[in-house]
Amino acid sequence: MRQLVEEARRQGRLVGFVPTMGGLHAGHASLTRAAAEACDEVAVSIFVNPSQFGPGEDFDRYPRSAEADCRLLAEAEASWVFMPEVESIYPPGDATRVVVGGPAVRWEGEHRPGHFEGVATVVSRLLAMVPAQRAYFGAKDWQQTVVVRRMVRDLALPVEIVVCPTIREPDGLAMSSRNAYLSPDERRRATALSAGLATAEAAWRAGSRAAAIEAELRRRLEAADVVVDYAALVDPESLEPLAADAVRGIPAIALVAGRVGSTRLLDNCMLD
Amino acid sequence: MRQLVEEARRQGRLVGFVPTMGGLHAGHASLTRAAAEACDEVAVSIFVNPSQFGPGEDFDRYPRSAEADCRLLAEAEASWVFMPEVESIYPPGDATRVVVGGPAVRWEGEHRPGHFEGVATVVSRLLAMVPAQRAYFGAKDWQQTVVVRRMVRDLALPVEIVVCPTIREPDGLAMSSRNAYLSPDERRRATALSAGLATAEAAWRAGSRAAAIEAELRRRLEAADVVVDYAALVDPESLEPLAADAVRGIPAIALVAGRVGSTRLLDNCMLD
Repeated sequence: MRQLVEEARRQGRLVGFVPTMGGLHAGHASLTRAAAEACDEVAVSIFVNPSQFGPGEDFDRYPRSAEADCRLLAEAEASWVFMPEVESIYPPGDATRVVVGGPAVRWEGEHRPGHFEGVATVVSRLLAMVPAQRAYFGAKDWQQTVVVRRMVRDLALPVEIVVCPTIREPDGLAMSSRNAYLSPDERRRATALSAGLATAEAAWRAGSRAAAIEAELRRRLEAADVVVDYAALVDPESLEPLAADAVRGIPAIALVAGRVGSTRLLDNCMLD
Repeated sequence: MRQLVEEARRQGRLVGFVPTMGGLHAGHASLTRAAAEACDEVAVSIFVNPSQFGPGEDFDRYPRSAEADCRLLAEAEASWVFMPEVESIYPPGDATRVVVGGPAVRWEGEHRPGHFEGVATVVSRLLAMVPAQRAYFGAKDWQQTVVVRRMVRDLALPVEIVVCPTIREPDGLAMSSRNAYLSPDERRRATALSAGLATAEAAWRAGSRAAAIEAELRRRLEAADVVVDYAALVDPESLEPLAADAVRGIPAIALVAGRVGSTRLLDNCMLD
């Protein structure tokens, strides 16, 4: 994979990279198409990274669908699909981890201990194996995009991180490989995340205070039987919570995470 | 710096990299000359890395001698000297650390908590800023060479680590920037490290057991008023201690560290 990318770069070609865990959906297709439009070649990796799943999480049942994934990627004009073995990413005797503090500490970092260590570790390895000029990530996992940009800046990695908009179902549900876990009833209730965020955005624009918006967002989620991990208005870069009385006029993003049945879902909405 | 290296590589040139903390001596000159002989261009970095010094260690008084260093490097045929500011290596808001377990846990890892995290973090950044095909390290810091090789393999960094022999004073003392701290009396006593290692090597060849060799090595160091941190026969790659009754016929290296006055010195000797 590295040789392909290096050879393309030697020929002056711009290479984009889309790291994924497979279970591909329209969000991944959109990332890949965005990369294909901006770059000459697009590498997509499919690697269900064990180190970013905690004990008791869904590593074993995470969707694995290599054939359908490859069809989707051909359609989206990927040049190359990279499907490394676990032993390529974690060689025998592996003892190295990339640890990010700062923006990785709260939210997902708190609710999924070790998650971002797994993400930073695998992304740093994938970026070394696929030395593209650009790497594409979806805004749906906003905190991940902040953590990856932080890591790339800190480790001086020679890659530009491009963040693409969240792709949604017609009823607003953010595309996620984990949506496949939802029963029909859960699928209906899951729209509470995007609907709650839309209400939060309207309230922010109307001048409501952060604490009031958070309380209303949480109320709406709980009304749909979503077990809320967090529902917070935060600074988009530091991910520090806004002050309770913060109002429009400052950078802000609303982050939500919660469980619908046994399925954990995330969503967010930039406020302005 | 990255542009210089990338441009040289685009022209098909082999680039070697020697990361240092300055305070350069004949050991660094030897590394640089080895790189200059094998490569077309040699980059040498001088950066006294704060994150690899613990509280109360000698960061503040570590030798800083940029002019003499540059003269030595010109003599040794370095192509480029890279002297980054602290803010280039640790950008504002920096929150990322590279953590190595395994071979980094014992010995220096135990006696200098956080040291190898600082080393791995700075070396990963320097390797990103100076993307040479080869990087040169001295065998005097043997555990460091093992930790760096482990990190490079684990993070899939596209660089070959070359380890060069320890350079010694005529009486056997391993070259070290910290030798400058020694008083004349301490300088004489410091030869106990290399002399003890030579005796250990002879005993190993003669068939002595590991535990007996370690005890004799420690006795010789203590006889010279060296405050011993460790004196151990270990596997050269895992750095696990040899069994007490281990004898020649297996890979082995003797590691010593201790303080002579207030100066902490290291040395080692591969056994065979």
